[in-house]
Amino acid sequence: MSNLGITPRDKSYSDWYNDLIQKAELADHSPVRGCMVIRPNGYAIWELMQRALDDMFKATGHVNAYFPLLIPKSFLSKEAEHVDGFAKECAVVTHHRLMNDPNGKGVIVDPDAKLEEELIIRPTSETIIWHCYKNWIQSYRDLPLLINQWANVMRWELRTRLFLRTAEFLWQEGHTAHATHEEAETETMQMVNVYRTFAEEFLAIPVLTGRKTEHEKFAGALHTYCIEALTQDLKCIQAGTSHHLGQNFAKAFDVKFQSQEGKLEHVFATSWGVSTRLIGALIMAHSDDKGLVVPPRLAPTQVVIVPIGRDDAARELTYPVSDKLADDLRAINWKGSPIRVKVDKREKETPGFKFNDWEMKGACIRIELGPRDLEAGHVIISRRDLGEKTNVPLAEAATYIAAQIEAMQSALFEKCLQLREDNTHRLNTWAEFAAHFEGEGGNGFVVAHWDGTTETEKLISEKTKATIRCIPFVPLHPDDEQPGTCIFSGKPSDRRVVFAKAY
Amino acid sequence: MSNLGITPRDKSYSDWYNDLIQKAELADHSPVRGCMVIRPNGYAIWELMQRALDDMFKATGHVNAYFPLLIPKSFLSKEAEHVDGFAKECAVVTHHRLMNDPNGKGVIVDPDAKLEEELIIRPTSETIIWHCYKNWIQSYRDLPLLINQWANVMRWELRTRLFLRTAEFLWQEGHTAHATHEEAETETMQMVNVYRTFAEEFLAIPVLTGRKTEHEKFAGALHTYCIEALTQDLKCIQAGTSHHLGQNFAKAFDVKFQSQEGKLEHVFATSWGVSTRLIGALIMAHSDDKGLVVPPRLAPTQVVIVPIGRDDAARELTYPVSDKLADDLRAINWKGSPIRVKVDKREKETPGFKFNDWEMKGACIRIELGPRDLEAGHVIISRRDLGEKTNVPLAEAATYIAAQIEAMQSALFEKCLQLREDNTHRLNTWAEFAAHFEGEGGNGFVVAHWDGTTETEKLISEKTKATIRCIPFVPLHPDDEQPGTCIFSGKPSDRRVVFAKAY
Repeated sequence: MSNLGITPRDKSYSDWYNDLIQKAELADHSPVRGCMVIRPNGYAIWELMQRALDDMFKATGHVNAYFPLLIPKSFLSKEAEHVDGFAKECAVVTHHRLMNDPNGKGVIVDPDAKLEEELIIRPTSETIIWHCYKNWIQSYRDLPLLINQWANVMRWELRTRLFLRTAEFLWQEGHTAHATHEEAETETMQMVNVYRTFAEEFLAIPVLTGRKTEHEKFAGALHTYCIEALTQDLKCIQAGTSHHLGQNFAKAFDVKFQSQEGKLEHVFATSWGVSTRLIGALIMAHSDDKGLVVPPRLAPTQVVIVPIGRDDAARELTYPVSDKLADDLRAINWKGSPIRVKVDKREKETPGFKFNDWEMKGACIRIELGPRDLEAGHVIISRRDLGEKTNVPLAEAATYIAAQIEAMQSALFEKCLQLREDNTHRLNTWAEFAAHFEGEGGNGFVVAHWDGTTETEKLISEKTKATIRCIPFVPLHPDDEQPGTCIFSGKPSDRRVVFAKAY
Repeated sequence: MSNLGITPRDKSYSDWYNDLIQKAELADHSPVRGCMVIRPNGYAIWELMQRALDDMFKATGHVNAYFPLLIPKSFLSKEAEHVDGFAKECAVVTHHRLMNDPNGKGVIVDPDAKLEEELIIRPTSETIIWHCYKNWIQSYRDLPLLINQWANVMRWELRTRLFLRTAEFLWQEGHTAHATHEEAETETMQMVNVYRTFAEEFLAIPVLTGRKTEHEKFAGALHTYCIEALTQDLKCIQAGTSHHLGQNFAKAFDVKFQSQEGKLEHVFATSWGVSTRLIGALIMAHSDDKGLVVPPRLAPTQVVIVPIGRDDAARELTYPVSDKLADDLRAINWKGSPIRVKVDKREKETPGFKFNDWEMKGACIRIELGPRDLEAGHVIISRRDLGEKTNVPLAEAATYIAAQIEAMQSALFEKCLQLREDNTHRLNTWAEFAAHFEGEGGNGFVVAHWDGTTETEKLISEKTKATIRCIPFVPLHPDDEQPGTCIFSGKPSDRRVVFAKAY
């Protein structure tokens, strides 16, 4: 562990991740196993993600609503594939009252307050929402119905990791209803592309976009589209999914509409979601041994100004200049928002402490501003991802900083893209493939032939821990869509697919 | 029931309320008793409330975070008053897995997946939050800690009513930690004043602001401040509360800080919240027999333009003018936001249907625009709260509409204020008081003397269903702070307090 309290990545990537989350005060474990507390520094990133995504959802015609947390147990078994693939590990509410313990001073569950039917805390909301849609949809005039929900959900996960896999997490889930298969397909594709745009332009993370295999698709879907990101330890994170549900849930919940031709038909459905897992992806993609690195579009603090002032005389010089520079920066609109600036006037802390603190917490640009700098007519500017200090004339500082913010957003993306390109491999033999994924580490994306069967897919995953992440919409290389022979079974293969070890 | 499907208020206020919520598509009952679905039309109002409140919280130095949904049962009994006053009717999670029913095709709770300690779905989050604060607060440098959370909570209510009292509801809960009693008191008062400002300036509802009695205060608080609103059926709605918790929760969860003088002291706390109940208050304050009336600052649709166009020829005339007017309105910034406009181009619906539909759904300003109007160079404008139609020259329409939006916001407030003034009574004898509150109806606010004891307070409430809503900070009349004799017991009273029947 370094003197900052973070294990370096090359020593233990997993410890580095946990240490960083603690030291940057992003999240905490909760007393309930597998649940997390999202601390203000982490939640501020989530708020920026929410705002950006919500704007994109609304720009594509969606509205928000809120559906109940609790789902009657019987709902889960209405869609057969859904219950098989999904609903087993979940929190079950069985009683509705506590009482004073007659033998002590605590409280116990009142045995008389047992529910007639147990209730499940939603692991996802398809069932309760399609129950509602039955009352809301009668005619083609009611379609399309384009609804999104921001909510907490719960899945009783055995192995948890802050942000990436927690029992309770925050997410959005879109649930749309359409008159035709084609419209639902267009929506499914539109939303995975919204996620891709968000990942690339906001998270600064390049993602593979493609279709999940039958084995990996959402339980109850016709097919699932996804975005998949690569971490610095060369593992894959599924960062968002969009499902074409066909008429499965409409049939399970008997949701029909009268078509323009007067026929009664089942509705076509989609659902799609991203979650607080994106914060985990963001940390894993960009951060370093000094702490958090956040792409500027999602950084709660894009610029921090540290006026150096040991005494009142110094502060009288540096504080007004800092405030003025902060105002000048806030007057600059970058990507639709004023630049987010803080002036760190904590007088009990040393400049050195503040520099480390803001590096840990991921301020994108740091400005030092001391009496001597002012005398020289400059400020000292340092970009979080580069670390070098540059003297910039005070009069040019605001313009320079705005340009650096823009440059940092691109640089983070390019760095990730380079990492992915350097770690995408085309393998052709099982010996190579098995050796490549040996050991506990990641090892990037492997593009290889697969015979298209779930049986082979499962065997490969059992032997290597690598799974098929997606069948890309656009081949990474033109040859990837040429036929070949399966890397494991030797049977014919239509095209190559992408394997990786995943979080 | 009228042809619009709404029971008139004078026939049954309660049926009117429920009908309106259904017909305006604001909310639905859920299959789980007492829980609600907030439909897009209702949720859009909540989003505007959230945005406005969140801006006010941030302007007063607060940040957001997220704490877990589930609370270990034992936490609830740590603060003695809290558990007594609060935590009995709540949803209890006892198991974490379902399994296929060996005797059928449904699912059952897996008896092997019983939790060691039962978990409670948060009815409020003081206990889990103060558990976390123990790790976050060590020194005076960590104070004040000013955190807010937007979340769902659950209280197993027996009698529910959409928005006003539901088992699950959405709210925000602020939880702050301070170094001194005085700072916590300042915060408690600041936040009730934020709520008052929000109620008056956004909800357009005048509220009484004051202190709750010992009997009515939050379980675990030193004292509770509140805002109280009057409905059209002359009942009271508690619309927001702010609690000074003293050191009670800090002691229960052992949260101490090292003061500047080096002493170890318990932290002082506040908590404060408003909920989706505010949507119920908004409906009850302003709406009428034709449907929803929303104050413009919280109206998702401030202006609807209905171009009259039975055929393509008419639409070619009216659509471009409508779109242009919509753009002109969107270019106007009212109270920090562009005016929210919709152009209703549904071609399957008649103008008459659209007029009724937008009256029901609460668009503030309606504009009709037909080929003949355009020939005459005017549009027809109607304000939701007045209903009269006015011809306004097209060139002046945008300015006129902006002025009407402003005027409507004020008019709704003034109308409510007048209703409250007309229905605030100073009563001096028990006979008057008991007669005044007889029957099922409301009957406004009664300002009367009370001897200050919980015993009398309970007896008055048993006999009349009227409760003490608050002890106002500012007397409604200067004489209200003069001593007198209790209206019920005849014992000495320091001052008058406010009684009403409450939702």
